[in-house]
Amino acid sequence: MEISPLENLLSGIDSPNDLRKLHVYQLEQLAAEIREFIIDKCSANPGHFGASLGAVEIAVALHYVFNTPYDKLIWDVGHQAYAHKILTGRKNAFDSNRKLNGLSGFPKMEESEYDAFGVGHASTSISAGLGFAVSARMNGENRQTVAVIGDGSLTGGMAFEGLNNAGWENADMLVILNDNNIAIDPSVGALKKYLTHITSSSKYNKLKKNIWNILGEGSSIRWLLRHLGNVIKSAVVYESNFFESLGFRYFGPIDGHDVRTLTTMLTRLKTIRGPKLLHVVTQKGKGYEPAERNQTEWHAPGKFDRKTGKIRTTALDFSKPARYQDVFGETIIELAEQNPRITGITPAMATGCSLNRMMHRIPERTFDVGIAEAHAVTFAAGLAVAGWLPFCNIYSSFLQRAYDSVIHDVALQKLNMVLCIDRGGLVGEDGATHHGVFDLAYLRLVPNLIIAAPMNEIELRNMMYTAQLDNAGTFSIRYPRGVGAVPDWKRDFGKITVGKGRILHEGTDVAILSIGHPGNIVAQAIRAVEEKGISVMHCDMRFLKPIDEELLARAGRFKRVITVEDGTVTGGLGSAVAEFFAANNCNAQLTRLGVPDRFIQHGTIDELQSLCGFDVNGIVRTVVSGQ
Amino acid sequence: MEISPLENLLSGIDSPNDLRKLHVYQLEQLAAEIREFIIDKCSANPGHFGASLGAVEIAVALHYVFNTPYDKLIWDVGHQAYAHKILTGRKNAFDSNRKLNGLSGFPKMEESEYDAFGVGHASTSISAGLGFAVSARMNGENRQTVAVIGDGSLTGGMAFEGLNNAGWENADMLVILNDNNIAIDPSVGALKKYLTHITSSSKYNKLKKNIWNILGEGSSIRWLLRHLGNVIKSAVVYESNFFESLGFRYFGPIDGHDVRTLTTMLTRLKTIRGPKLLHVVTQKGKGYEPAERNQTEWHAPGKFDRKTGKIRTTALDFSKPARYQDVFGETIIELAEQNPRITGITPAMATGCSLNRMMHRIPERTFDVGIAEAHAVTFAAGLAVAGWLPFCNIYSSFLQRAYDSVIHDVALQKLNMVLCIDRGGLVGEDGATHHGVFDLAYLRLVPNLIIAAPMNEIELRNMMYTAQLDNAGTFSIRYPRGVGAVPDWKRDFGKITVGKGRILHEGTDVAILSIGHPGNIVAQAIRAVEEKGISVMHCDMRFLKPIDEELLARAGRFKRVITVEDGTVTGGLGSAVAEFFAANNCNAQLTRLGVPDRFIQHGTIDELQSLCGFDVNGIVRTVVSGQ
Repeated sequence: MEISPLENLLSGIDSPNDLRKLHVYQLEQLAAEIREFIIDKCSANPGHFGASLGAVEIAVALHYVFNTPYDKLIWDVGHQAYAHKILTGRKNAFDSNRKLNGLSGFPKMEESEYDAFGVGHASTSISAGLGFAVSARMNGENRQTVAVIGDGSLTGGMAFEGLNNAGWENADMLVILNDNNIAIDPSVGALKKYLTHITSSSKYNKLKKNIWNILGEGSSIRWLLRHLGNVIKSAVVYESNFFESLGFRYFGPIDGHDVRTLTTMLTRLKTIRGPKLLHVVTQKGKGYEPAERNQTEWHAPGKFDRKTGKIRTTALDFSKPARYQDVFGETIIELAEQNPRITGITPAMATGCSLNRMMHRIPERTFDVGIAEAHAVTFAAGLAVAGWLPFCNIYSSFLQRAYDSVIHDVALQKLNMVLCIDRGGLVGEDGATHHGVFDLAYLRLVPNLIIAAPMNEIELRNMMYTAQLDNAGTFSIRYPRGVGAVPDWKRDFGKITVGKGRILHEGTDVAILSIGHPGNIVAQAIRAVEEKGISVMHCDMRFLKPIDEELLARAGRFKRVITVEDGTVTGGLGSAVAEFFAANNCNAQLTRLGVPDRFIQHGTIDELQSLCGFDVNGIVRTVVSGQ
Repeated sequence: MEISPLENLLSGIDSPNDLRKLHVYQLEQLAAEIREFIIDKCSANPGHFGASLGAVEIAVALHYVFNTPYDKLIWDVGHQAYAHKILTGRKNAFDSNRKLNGLSGFPKMEESEYDAFGVGHASTSISAGLGFAVSARMNGENRQTVAVIGDGSLTGGMAFEGLNNAGWENADMLVILNDNNIAIDPSVGALKKYLTHITSSSKYNKLKKNIWNILGEGSSIRWLLRHLGNVIKSAVVYESNFFESLGFRYFGPIDGHDVRTLTTMLTRLKTIRGPKLLHVVTQKGKGYEPAERNQTEWHAPGKFDRKTGKIRTTALDFSKPARYQDVFGETIIELAEQNPRITGITPAMATGCSLNRMMHRIPERTFDVGIAEAHAVTFAAGLAVAGWLPFCNIYSSFLQRAYDSVIHDVALQKLNMVLCIDRGGLVGEDGATHHGVFDLAYLRLVPNLIIAAPMNEIELRNMMYTAQLDNAGTFSIRYPRGVGAVPDWKRDFGKITVGKGRILHEGTDVAILSIGHPGNIVAQAIRAVEEKGISVMHCDMRFLKPIDEELLARAGRFKRVITVEDGTVTGGLGSAVAEFFAANNCNAQLTRLGVPDRFIQHGTIDELQSLCGFDVNGIVRTVVSGQ
């Protein structure tokens, strides 16, 4: 095969079969082209930029060496898998990434046979991969299973559970540890320190060149095991033992941007039985200088100018509506400065929830515990028992991982603490795995729990203020992704009465009860239907639990009642109202608007709210149609 | 102080202060007395026997050395903490253990200031303990924190999350690894192999005597660190690294039944800063020969004759109603013998859910993955994608730990697999931490999920049969602890129509809709009210989701409808009915019977159902009173 260095290789790659026709010497060029492709596409159509740039060579090498889709390849989280998507027939569709009806930002089984398992949340890949590996054993197949997991995801307990079980099963599987020392925020945890120690060990660095330079020479597997394994072990004997104590053979660390070494190593590992881990060191944002420099900002930067490296800034402007997360981030500092018992805890969402501000201002009372939601909540519970007032901030869809901690370690223990639940409701482009639409319903059934949802920034501030007053109980405060509703939101704090809603608009024909931010959509819809001569009462319930039964009784005297929430219509506000009506002989006809009983895919928040029927038009239509 | 060996020491111990007045030479005798006390009490009033016998010396040594309750002591799970309870002022109340209004079987903050944190589920102690340790640091207190965790609990991901974070925080805390090599069933996992390797290492055994014999001589801490640490390390250098890689100093292993060595070691560890782990080897059931011999059976043996060591046998008798778990255990073998795609998975509940039968019969398709609920579900999901039909069996209250796996890795992926949820409903004596009362509500809001609940053994068999038919979807089958309702239950399989309930009794005055086993209580109640001339229609809904709307519409034409479920009235069957009625202009008055919106404590299942108002009397009262 002729090799022309000027030829564009990527244009000829429509599947891994095309990739495998290339000579190994061409892979470097191909990786560079993919990297350019990602930079180009993501500058115009935002996505998970940094992680995908860091995993280009891994994706190329894996599809080059392994017989995908027969061999199973599972990307943990999956936001680093753009190169994988590009190589597996989705290059031409990539402009639709994260758009309604377009490609998902994450691997998704329905989308491609190369997406062996649907992902989105961290730390699932080893468990799912073990399923494939054990399946291959039971079937007597020589099918390979590879799970690619980042050092951030490795802090999640489920990854440990998977390693521990895989080592016990002695399953034939390869775990690739993609170690870039950062999740969205810099990685934390003792294990991260340990991995850093391995990769920065002077012994390792001295040996690295010698070892890896000879790898290209086609030495036998037996040689690899006998010599290389031992050499590495003698260099990093202490370091390799975490994984070996879990029954994994440890290989590495190797440079994850050296695609030839990667392919050589993978080719050899392919023939080694049992559980094995290859430690690969990569750089998030690799190949795009601004992203290499500021990895947190460039995790998912939004649109940017690829020439200047300029992205939209997010400086706070108190004269405009702010992002809810920033209101949280500012407010917790104000409160913590007044109330010395307040502590802030987040499982690896410090930037995403803006707790990073408190982390800089009051570091001694702020804790990023890593991707470890259950631990975050129970650690906060321990602090609460010890007399502190923890604000534990977690995204709604990730709180699903700490559900037992909420029930068993917080609510049952009757603790005074606060769960701040960010990204409640539809989150838009991240799609089905990330929508925070179940929380209202799954929290409502937990005894002792207060569930509040602010309609705007001022409400959020006042709910946070109220939650930190003495003996306020177990508070959860749930708010959405994105921008609030009012400018000039930084006002003095006021206490909100727990369990009391408010009437925002009086009316006679229809009652609309809403919770949280969608109240703003309702307010718009009411202006529209009033023009048609329909008179609507609007209650912002403020609290799903305890619920304001006075307001419910008042609404129950209407002929028609509509509930609006950005959560599942099954089990949430609508259900609470239905329960009350059924028990109290209220014969109002009830329409529950919210997220229907199916998984909602990705798109803009507006598009998805429209699909679900609780955008302005949907609410107007419901009011007018009488159904 | 005079020491009389014949004196009964325990009678003089009403608090750890009394304990601390003893001479260290008396502790062995005290431990023996406590052990006798536990054997005596548990033979008459059943409890968690084996684990508590194994932790007697640990409890004695901890309270002797540490300044409880100022120092914080957290027992993981807590069913091993009977000695702790006996030493902390609850000796005389111990006859009430696990009885209604009596002592809880687990440490509970409301019960005693010595119970630093409420426990029941596995793997929480390190996370909560870290909260105390970090609190002490922030307060500048010299307060000690000790978490006692078993090797079984250590397989739970949250324990790893806690270790990883504690090592990073460099917190002053001591973790005691109570390694008895068994949870309820024998421990599994790569880490268990690793721990076994440590404790059985010949090097260690050779050195053990020499090392520990000199410990009593009062050598200085510096000496301990310099010499003992190194000696241990040279003996078990490889083995100690799992914990050291997580930032913990590793000490041990030592004999956990040698109370003097324990006290010596703890005294010294008390003055060592930072995270440290003491590996203690114990024997479950220690000191009672039958329990030492059969540790699984004697985990919680029920009443027994302490002289003969005889406990109630649980041999299957097909002519009587059987325990639901045994029906599951028998039926999955029958199905798996017909359907080669069936696999069985449980996270460390093999005996509890009777999957141990399949484990013996078809070991190659049966998996105990250890205490690792999230992993169990996602591992099963991987198997399902690979073409297998997994039956994953988890207790209801532990499924809370796998909630995100159910949503994100199973339901979203539209997999054909089965979740068998044992211990659904009130479980009785284990109390608030273990009642499986939230599942119906928290599962109902998950799209794509089928939720079935059998009213008796035959129904359970047929639901399991139906769930393994081709493309049956994502099935959950939820059934209670304890015995079913019908003899001669081992009949031929029949397919059940998904989403269809059945009318068990026709009537005209009131409609009662029930789901699952409580339908049997309803049937009894109906016989009682018929004598009073009230005519009741009774529907066994069979499926909470999809729900039988035809039956709901029919019930909606009654004046009064009562729902009965052994789950929370918030969000479950009652809510589903309320939602339907409110949306469909059914003006029936609805009374929802089930578990009210508060945590239910321990007692017999009958007592607790009566408290909740859905025993026979409660249902009769509701029907008759008209409310």
